[in-house]
Amino acid sequence: MSGVLYGVGVGPGDPELVTRKAARLIAGARVIAYPTLAGAPSFARAIVADLIPGDAEEIVMDLPMRAAREPAQAVYDDGAARIAAALEAGRDVVCLCEGDPFFYGSFMYLYARLRDRHAVEVVPGVSSVMAGAARAGLPLAARNERLTVLPGPLPEPELRARIDGAEAVAILKVGRHLPKIRAVIRDLGLEPRAIYVERATLAAERICPLSEAPEKAPYFSMILLNKGDDPWL
Amino acid sequence: MSGVLYGVGVGPGDPELVTRKAARLIAGARVIAYPTLAGAPSFARAIVADLIPGDAEEIVMDLPMRAAREPAQAVYDDGAARIAAALEAGRDVVCLCEGDPFFYGSFMYLYARLRDRHAVEVVPGVSSVMAGAARAGLPLAARNERLTVLPGPLPEPELRARIDGAEAVAILKVGRHLPKIRAVIRDLGLEPRAIYVERATLAAERICPLSEAPEKAPYFSMILLNKGDDPWL
Repeated sequence: MSGVLYGVGVGPGDPELVTRKAARLIAGARVIAYPTLAGAPSFARAIVADLIPGDAEEIVMDLPMRAAREPAQAVYDDGAARIAAALEAGRDVVCLCEGDPFFYGSFMYLYARLRDRHAVEVVPGVSSVMAGAARAGLPLAARNERLTVLPGPLPEPELRARIDGAEAVAILKVGRHLPKIRAVIRDLGLEPRAIYVERATLAAERICPLSEAPEKAPYFSMILLNKGDDPWL
Repeated sequence: MSGVLYGVGVGPGDPELVTRKAARLIAGARVIAYPTLAGAPSFARAIVADLIPGDAEEIVMDLPMRAAREPAQAVYDDGAARIAAALEAGRDVVCLCEGDPFFYGSFMYLYARLRDRHAVEVVPGVSSVMAGAARAGLPLAARNERLTVLPGPLPEPELRARIDGAEAVAILKVGRHLPKIRAVIRDLGLEPRAIYVERATLAAERICPLSEAPEKAPYFSMILLNKGDDPWL
């Protein structure tokens, strides 16, 4: 009997925003897998640290900082091989994913490598976008509004065109792209409607108008914007 | 001491996809509120029925079928007044929301009416979009892809322009708009890439290529589409 690979979303950061299914799978896991970045502690693991059995085996995939494509692919190749070995030995593997596994998550690299030969189940999680909107008190989208989700690293002209043509906008992975994004939003006259959200649902959470956002933003930050005259009615 | 209004996302349908925070709040609730449609049972309530205390008061806001704007607003006015009375009597109120409260949710109508005079906390939930992608085995968005979320009731030219200009697309609230949406996607040559998802994570879940979708779709159905050559790598 081969094991099952579970790609489990652990939500935006607050351990209480883990689903009951994720909590059950993690608490029962004998093998846990997750990526780390340049040896830093895993954020996904920290969210559910209290749930992980003390004797669980941990498969860590350590990605190099600002990895070019190939070195990162090699890390996932190696991680997938270790996960496959556990599955073939009949052990289930729970892979921890920040937020939701299929929404800008790295789990898809493992999914691509393992789905053809192994049973894989994806367990959706609360996304940082929904958590950010909840904490900011700003509905993401209402009625028949379109919602556009944009990654902050997009080139400036692309960001400009997409924000200009959108109704409700969520910009993720802001980080070092904050000055570029802020300039675009300011140019479009939308700054008074934009809210900056950093580390939503964590103790270090910070929410403010974009005009008061810090010069330096962490990777886990976003900008929310709704052009509707009254997004609530 | 005034009570707190909690707008609680209960996820896409599987009771295990409720967060631990939502479960705690519902299990401890003395007053539960939720909308219904034309007297039909509440889907949000059904998801968490096992958690609701037997002696909890229930505030039901029954919306008329295909309501014009004004009758529905009157229902929310009345519901908000009943919720406000409970809050002013010092009781917390837990309002149940399918999926996530701020992602096309009706909670925002109560939020608009009550946030200025009462303490309101929004508890994000797993959205049907993330659940649909997880169940379909199709990542929503990867790397620097843009994701466009479109409500199915949008007019045909608007749908066409938005799908044509997008990378990854999720079309929600498909329901009776399925023939219109399918025609647009077919016209754009994208049908082979489109997946139809109905009632994700429920026992009656149905997932198939769009070309095999039924003639009649329920309200809780969506179409997922990713134009990337290999959305997984």
